[in-house]
Amino acid sequence: MSQLIRPSTEQTRWDEEADVIVVGLGVAGAAAALEASSAGADTLVIERAGGGGGTSAMSGGVIYLGGGTRLQKACGFEDSVEEMFKYLMASSGPSPDEAKMRLYCEGSVELYEWLLAQGVPFKEVHHFGVSGEPPNDDGLVFSGSERHHPFCDIAMPAPRGHVPAKTHQAGPLLMQKLIEAVEASPAGVRTNHRCTRLVQEPSGEVTGVVAQVFGEERSLRARRGVILTTGGFIHNDAMLEAHAPLARACNVRIGAEGDDGSGIQLGMAAGADVLHMDAVSISLPANQPWSLKRGVLVNEQGQRFVNEDSYYGRLGEAALLHNGGRAWLIVDDEIFEKPTYPREVAAVGETVAELERELGLPAGSLEATLGLYNRHAEKSEDPVFRKLPEYVQPLTKPPFGAFDCTTENSIYAAFTLGGLRADVDGRVLDPAGDPIPGLYAAGRATSGLSVGSYSSGLSLGDGAFFGRRAGRTAGLA
Amino acid sequence: MSQLIRPSTEQTRWDEEADVIVVGLGVAGAAAALEASSAGADTLVIERAGGGGGTSAMSGGVIYLGGGTRLQKACGFEDSVEEMFKYLMASSGPSPDEAKMRLYCEGSVELYEWLLAQGVPFKEVHHFGVSGEPPNDDGLVFSGSERHHPFCDIAMPAPRGHVPAKTHQAGPLLMQKLIEAVEASPAGVRTNHRCTRLVQEPSGEVTGVVAQVFGEERSLRARRGVILTTGGFIHNDAMLEAHAPLARACNVRIGAEGDDGSGIQLGMAAGADVLHMDAVSISLPANQPWSLKRGVLVNEQGQRFVNEDSYYGRLGEAALLHNGGRAWLIVDDEIFEKPTYPREVAAVGETVAELERELGLPAGSLEATLGLYNRHAEKSEDPVFRKLPEYVQPLTKPPFGAFDCTTENSIYAAFTLGGLRADVDGRVLDPAGDPIPGLYAAGRATSGLSVGSYSSGLSLGDGAFFGRRAGRTAGLA
Repeated sequence: MSQLIRPSTEQTRWDEEADVIVVGLGVAGAAAALEASSAGADTLVIERAGGGGGTSAMSGGVIYLGGGTRLQKACGFEDSVEEMFKYLMASSGPSPDEAKMRLYCEGSVELYEWLLAQGVPFKEVHHFGVSGEPPNDDGLVFSGSERHHPFCDIAMPAPRGHVPAKTHQAGPLLMQKLIEAVEASPAGVRTNHRCTRLVQEPSGEVTGVVAQVFGEERSLRARRGVILTTGGFIHNDAMLEAHAPLARACNVRIGAEGDDGSGIQLGMAAGADVLHMDAVSISLPANQPWSLKRGVLVNEQGQRFVNEDSYYGRLGEAALLHNGGRAWLIVDDEIFEKPTYPREVAAVGETVAELERELGLPAGSLEATLGLYNRHAEKSEDPVFRKLPEYVQPLTKPPFGAFDCTTENSIYAAFTLGGLRADVDGRVLDPAGDPIPGLYAAGRATSGLSVGSYSSGLSLGDGAFFGRRAGRTAGLA
Repeated sequence: MSQLIRPSTEQTRWDEEADVIVVGLGVAGAAAALEASSAGADTLVIERAGGGGGTSAMSGGVIYLGGGTRLQKACGFEDSVEEMFKYLMASSGPSPDEAKMRLYCEGSVELYEWLLAQGVPFKEVHHFGVSGEPPNDDGLVFSGSERHHPFCDIAMPAPRGHVPAKTHQAGPLLMQKLIEAVEASPAGVRTNHRCTRLVQEPSGEVTGVVAQVFGEERSLRARRGVILTTGGFIHNDAMLEAHAPLARACNVRIGAEGDDGSGIQLGMAAGADVLHMDAVSISLPANQPWSLKRGVLVNEQGQRFVNEDSYYGRLGEAALLHNGGRAWLIVDDEIFEKPTYPREVAAVGETVAELERELGLPAGSLEATLGLYNRHAEKSEDPVFRKLPEYVQPLTKPPFGAFDCTTENSIYAAFTLGGLRADVDGRVLDPAGDPIPGLYAAGRATSGLSVGSYSSGLSLGDGAFFGRRAGRTAGLA
């Protein structure tokens, strides 16, 4: 038998029992525990770290919500379920789960209200000019490519990044409030419990877990179900190599140490299917501050490859997955500005030809690229990649410079998006599409809303929303 | 319990028994059966179709072999295990399995001799000027990008596509010989047996299979092991959507109808791990005949994106996975030639500007691309993508034309490369890296030599080589 599974025939006594056992106390685990508990189930959360929070508490706290939340309205933005749905279906990878996406968009206004009810504060001020987290406690930002080609032609743009009211990194505040809510609920929390096995009946049903607690084994019986909310696998090199090998080039791996894929592996050992295991979010914050969106990003052929005003999650994907992580942001003296994230100047030249030589680009390649770009930029146009006119101006004033955006010398920040196949109610499915009785999952241990491209706030949103649904399903099982 | 698993406790009688049961009779299944049988195991092959052959028998029969085979030597080519290994490690996707690759290269000469011993004939003539299958019964071809950048700088090029001596599609001959060998061996073959479940002990061990035979269920006990050689999943839309959604745009899906992922799903239901499920081989035969390698392939930004002399498997990958399947091959009157595969002319123009307009490319983009290309082509150079000098000449003679290489109007031929995680001896592993007792796999049901890019002949070679190893392991278990 797999070392990840304990046959129930060998599990004759239990150290503890509950109706529902939630594995992991990040945003998905907290949401699941709160709902399972509300549904009347005796609920226990086990967390491998010394305290809850996980990756959610290390994040910027952005939650992707829309469809006309109270916060959007207070800031004067119109939005609708349909526009949010259209944007997310177009921008979240090659084949997002339509049923999950629709439920999420339809439930987004309510999810915001639920967060308020848990005590998560939001300041009703929109902050323009940054991607993702604002530098202050403002509550609403653009956290994707909504305003940019091709998405602006697909759906009416609206800011949907909802950020709890805390200056600099709102994730800890979000998790503090949710954990306080869990603690105020009847649900119990056991920290320093590292889940190492699922207990499985000969019928396939999952009926408990085995955990390591300071080197001792503890067995916990789940009368109604086990919910895996254990996060992704960005810290598991072997899994990255097996599923998303290019992501290994990223020098910033976003995730608490628990993001080692343990829950995904437990589920698979129990016979679960997985989806989109190659999907990763990769951020290259090359266009911060936004004034640098006026630069031109080129690959090692000296060619452009993306509209530079795109969300930085889209830049990273384009640069690493499609251009080998070889990229430079070209600026002239007119638009030169100190990048938000420290970034080396790879080369400087009095002419474009000199810059091209310094960068080792093919002779004439950068000249051809900038020649074409400038010709259209005279009219504030970019017919090649459709950057917004406000970021298009000719780059003609020497000296010219190139910011280093290669994987060797630039921040590429990654986390994984693939995981267990779970239905909209959090039931983990086998390859035939049937639920594995007693097994549920949510958050980054599952394949969720984004299956290849990313807008910030989708993981916290996804985890909260489908965590709640999984908690309700298991709680009522 | 999953509908893909039959608990052994419920399997009280068996219709038939053997030491080893091989599921599927393609190249991997035949190789596995022959070796299991040679190892002294009572062996039974079950095949869902009315006869053996599978996808292998629908193929061109190219087998990727090297390191100095008798055929390579007879044709006057030098090759070595090391050069073959370097080429394959560099050209077979982002993270090929080094241990499998090394064994394969080291065992390649012997595999060729084994094929001869099974009665597979090869004509000792090298055929130059085609990619993949030759138009006659010649035995040796270049079937990858060995001669082309960047691979020609990494390893000494040698032709390694070994093709059985049959004009037009040698796959059927290959499988005819291997099936004859199986029939001459003590192994039994049961056709019209569709494997629907694995029989699994409470301990996790796989001890048999359940098959549907003309609507009746038959159970077959495997005393030593079950070997899954059931092929890939190109004909399973849901699995494609879950793992390789972009491949759905391919209008030619290469595979017998059995390539529906059934064996991968059976393995997963038994707790197996999978690897590189997103990996696909995608062929865009835009540069056939080779004289069309002198054309210039551009995307919808009017930019080049690959050296056009690359193997067509590399062109397809570059065009579909990195450029949205939007591509056109630009030619001038001088190099215009009738393509081998019928291909529409998307546009014609007396000038490049006119062609660009007709194609709807951004104004000036194609002019800039051809301007740079022609400037270097005057000296037979291509510093941007390093096409070989023999295929580089300026495109200046009107009229100019564009062959349609979009997914809508061009052949994109695909099959899947991801699958079960098996070790070098064919043991199927769980997510913890431990073998699932009694379960083995080979061929396209597993992740093999190529994990993302492709050279023709790797699947037949991989299937034969690791099929033999799995057969030996299970046979001696």
